[in-house]
Amino acid sequence: MHAYRSHTCGELTAANAGSEIRLSGWVHRVRDHGGVLFIDLRDHYGITQVIADSDSPAFAALEKLRAETVIRIDGRVKLRDASLVNPKLPTGEIEVYATDMEVLGASDDLPLPVFGDQDYPEETRLAYRFLDLRRDSLHENIMLRSRVIKWIRDAMWGAGFTEFQTPIITASSPEGARDFLVPSRLHPGKFYALPQAPQQFKQLIMVAGFDRYFQIAPCFRDEDPRADRSPTDFYQLDLEMSFVDQEDVFAAIQPVIQGLFETFGNGRPVDADWPRIPYAESMLKYGSDKPDLRNPIEMQVVSDHFRGSGFGIFAKLLEQDGTEVRAIPAPTGGSRKFADRMNAFAQQQGLPGMGYIFWRKAEDGSTEAAGPIAKALGDEKTEAIRLQLGLGEGDAAFFLGGKPEAFEAVAGRARNEIGRELGLTDENQFKFAWIVDFPMYEKGEDGRIDFSHNPFSMPQGGLDALSGDPLSVKGYQYDLACNGYELISGAIRNHKPEIMFKAFELAGYGHDEVEKRFGGMVKAFRYGAPPHGGCAAGIDRIVMLLADEQNIREVIMFPMNQRAEDLMMGAPSEPTNEQLRELRLRALPKE
Amino acid sequence: MHAYRSHTCGELTAANAGSEIRLSGWVHRVRDHGGVLFIDLRDHYGITQVIADSDSPAFAALEKLRAETVIRIDGRVKLRDASLVNPKLPTGEIEVYATDMEVLGASDDLPLPVFGDQDYPEETRLAYRFLDLRRDSLHENIMLRSRVIKWIRDAMWGAGFTEFQTPIITASSPEGARDFLVPSRLHPGKFYALPQAPQQFKQLIMVAGFDRYFQIAPCFRDEDPRADRSPTDFYQLDLEMSFVDQEDVFAAIQPVIQGLFETFGNGRPVDADWPRIPYAESMLKYGSDKPDLRNPIEMQVVSDHFRGSGFGIFAKLLEQDGTEVRAIPAPTGGSRKFADRMNAFAQQQGLPGMGYIFWRKAEDGSTEAAGPIAKALGDEKTEAIRLQLGLGEGDAAFFLGGKPEAFEAVAGRARNEIGRELGLTDENQFKFAWIVDFPMYEKGEDGRIDFSHNPFSMPQGGLDALSGDPLSVKGYQYDLACNGYELISGAIRNHKPEIMFKAFELAGYGHDEVEKRFGGMVKAFRYGAPPHGGCAAGIDRIVMLLADEQNIREVIMFPMNQRAEDLMMGAPSEPTNEQLRELRLRALPKE
Repeated sequence: MHAYRSHTCGELTAANAGSEIRLSGWVHRVRDHGGVLFIDLRDHYGITQVIADSDSPAFAALEKLRAETVIRIDGRVKLRDASLVNPKLPTGEIEVYATDMEVLGASDDLPLPVFGDQDYPEETRLAYRFLDLRRDSLHENIMLRSRVIKWIRDAMWGAGFTEFQTPIITASSPEGARDFLVPSRLHPGKFYALPQAPQQFKQLIMVAGFDRYFQIAPCFRDEDPRADRSPTDFYQLDLEMSFVDQEDVFAAIQPVIQGLFETFGNGRPVDADWPRIPYAESMLKYGSDKPDLRNPIEMQVVSDHFRGSGFGIFAKLLEQDGTEVRAIPAPTGGSRKFADRMNAFAQQQGLPGMGYIFWRKAEDGSTEAAGPIAKALGDEKTEAIRLQLGLGEGDAAFFLGGKPEAFEAVAGRARNEIGRELGLTDENQFKFAWIVDFPMYEKGEDGRIDFSHNPFSMPQGGLDALSGDPLSVKGYQYDLACNGYELISGAIRNHKPEIMFKAFELAGYGHDEVEKRFGGMVKAFRYGAPPHGGCAAGIDRIVMLLADEQNIREVIMFPMNQRAEDLMMGAPSEPTNEQLRELRLRALPKE
Repeated sequence: MHAYRSHTCGELTAANAGSEIRLSGWVHRVRDHGGVLFIDLRDHYGITQVIADSDSPAFAALEKLRAETVIRIDGRVKLRDASLVNPKLPTGEIEVYATDMEVLGASDDLPLPVFGDQDYPEETRLAYRFLDLRRDSLHENIMLRSRVIKWIRDAMWGAGFTEFQTPIITASSPEGARDFLVPSRLHPGKFYALPQAPQQFKQLIMVAGFDRYFQIAPCFRDEDPRADRSPTDFYQLDLEMSFVDQEDVFAAIQPVIQGLFETFGNGRPVDADWPRIPYAESMLKYGSDKPDLRNPIEMQVVSDHFRGSGFGIFAKLLEQDGTEVRAIPAPTGGSRKFADRMNAFAQQQGLPGMGYIFWRKAEDGSTEAAGPIAKALGDEKTEAIRLQLGLGEGDAAFFLGGKPEAFEAVAGRARNEIGRELGLTDENQFKFAWIVDFPMYEKGEDGRIDFSHNPFSMPQGGLDALSGDPLSVKGYQYDLACNGYELISGAIRNHKPEIMFKAFELAGYGHDEVEKRFGGMVKAFRYGAPPHGGCAAGIDRIVMLLADEQNIREVIMFPMNQRAEDLMMGAPSEPTNEQLRELRLRALPKE
């Protein structure tokens, strides 16, 4: 017989009754029922109930076992009494009567129990990650992550993509975040960088004549701590295609993502209709470029009803250039209590408040509009608003005015809040949309023009478009929104050096600067670059959505804590003097 | 019609004759046959011949094209004349008569041509890697690498393994090579390290209760330059299993490697019999712990024939302790010319020379032994040697004497040389062997005992074995040799803290030192560690063998040069002052 096991702990069924078998695993739980020991023996595959009474030669040793000890058990498979069959366990029909036991790996008292669902502080969980990972839910999340990545790989190969590995120790590739640097020993004073994304390499792969690239790619960004992201690295499904336009990229990736969510979404419906929503429309209707379309609420511009109206605040405000009033319709939200709560929400979010109208049954049985705005506007304008928004008795509408940039984000959060509070948002599903036509440029607070997203995107209209107002230039740049998250971001790339230099010039980067920062890629574009484009999907985020987890550390095997420390392995740590000497570096004292 | 192509350049056949189609690709070659242009248009999928005569509206533009320009062609598919069909091309039955052409990506004059097989200096090839990668042989190598990795992944999942990603920004894990360090910005003065291998993490994954792990894992070592390895990173198929012994690991990995070589070995025979050869036997018979078994030569100890014999050098030498004389039989090597050549080879390798006997036909028709050793030994001993080695007329034997450590390696190289020179080695095949029973410890030149391989291996005999002579302790440590290369290295791990501390103590590492260096793993072993083991296979090496390449840079998309520089992207490079300030580091001036 094998030294450790004839079967796994998830394998034995009634068909094995009477067999002499050998199992190995962890002592999940020991119960002593008056001289009969019940031991749940656990391995990766399942749990098997082992029993021993005082007749068993193994009894004395089994009695003393600590939880999480690794043992080998020899024994005989017995059918359980019908009343004791556990239909929830694949091994629930049987139990194993132990005749011999060997401790393979002893266990000290546990700082973190494996059995049971008790919550523990995250720092303890991370320091004893090897114990936490034995717990069922985390174990399952990690297995889910692996299966998801395998499924993606298979789907990508099936779609004619080839996976290529791009360098991890490479050149700094400024893409908005901070690089992790790696000092070079052979070239003292010089540093490599870990890639923030394989952006330049995947474009070079296209220039090199490979047609459809993908990679489950580790990406490294030296980020400041934030709850929902890893402070050091993350994984993305990175892909790039040659000779494509935007719709080709969509057609390639939609079946992969949709199939993935259908396969691993735990039966939650997955919408097959992925609308294309221009960025400007998304900001207007949803107050976000990653709208949650499970929420049916769409905002509307209602400026005309307020212009010159009796509601002085908005009427006055609309006299300024670039202002608007927008309404958030709130079907079934027609109560003063709810309206006041949402007003308070807007105040928490830093706005002066959120005006509202709600429609209720009047004493005479007719529908009447209530609230200060309705009074100030008068019946006719109030009714026109109601008709425009398609609302009725029992509904409400909320109003925000000013320059859209100033209130759009809060409007978007209010829309989320209203949808959730009123139960309008059916959370138990996945809804997707492509957000398209992103502006290429934005004006910073200092008035300077800069890229609003990826500087490598092709401007719509090409070189010609770059001779007008930069702020009106749209890029072939797109995001995939899912349930309020940005799942994918991508673009058709700018593969023509002359357009690239012009595009960078508008953002204030001179010719030399572009050569210096992106020299490798720009050089490549001079020797026959194909039109190309692609996108990248956040793997950690996808797994979080599928696993229904809010914390990224629940879907990573060995995550850093929020201070970018590995508490289990003790990273980062002090280097030795010898290491610093070899690298020709000196660490400065703390400021 | 699609903006860029209706078909790829590898797709059109006689069945498409008469169709109006659109292709995009690179101008591989233009030939002008007296007013008719023949353009080989190339993409990832193949080459299509495009023609144009002066009647074509595209003629004038096509005539001016530089090689490697990316163009779109509209045209009509025509059958070639039977005499012009090219059976070597999938598209060889047709050509496309061009009616319209658009330049999608212009090309400057090429520093490195894509068409043709002319060799270029490696530095040029690396600086213009995106052009070099368009060449057929490198393109194919990179595609092979991708397919090999996919095949391995599928095979591993099929064998019940799950792929998990382990951290890349992590703690220093000293494993013999030098770490790449990554300075921490959030913790000034502290450093992360890139993993030399996921060794500790994969063992922690076993302790965490996952049963069969694998990963196509990037590994990082700050190596000094050497021709056949990357100076920064490499990929390995890393695997680990719980509740296994050595033979279980062999049984798991052999079908993967064997199937891989059968699938991608280009029809070369793949031996299915993988013998287990103890390390000591391998050193004796083959002078190497990674023997090339395609070579049938096996060395033998022939000390007894020389002890007290007339061949004074060896007779004297054998009076010292620990000395031996070994013979390398060389069937068909029986000529003075060959014997002298091999003697010169040994001298090149730093030995005083290599004695020999060869057997030839005497003038009387009988077989006679020739050479100075035969003379000195006399007929009887010479004949005894011939019989022991199973040699005859036309054969030779070479002799090396002394302490085996001093000549074993040269003997191994001489064996290779003899096998190759005499055509005994059938190179056109793959032969494997597991080298087992490696010694746990070796004595360094300073007389100190140190680990000879992996310090994490389980000593054979457990704790008891560690109380005797360390140099006699063997580990559950194994390598897979293939055609003279080490393809895999692995071990059954030491999962018991008390044995681990003792094993390290013998190598001079105190308790605190072990806790400090491997604290995370040692801590984990205290809470129920299963017996486990595994191995790691070098992916780059495997692809080199399959592609029949000698240089690792031929199987990596974007390799560093031997000075660990990326000539295309310009890495490593000077950091900005701002970056150094954020990291609280100062670069010291060169020494």
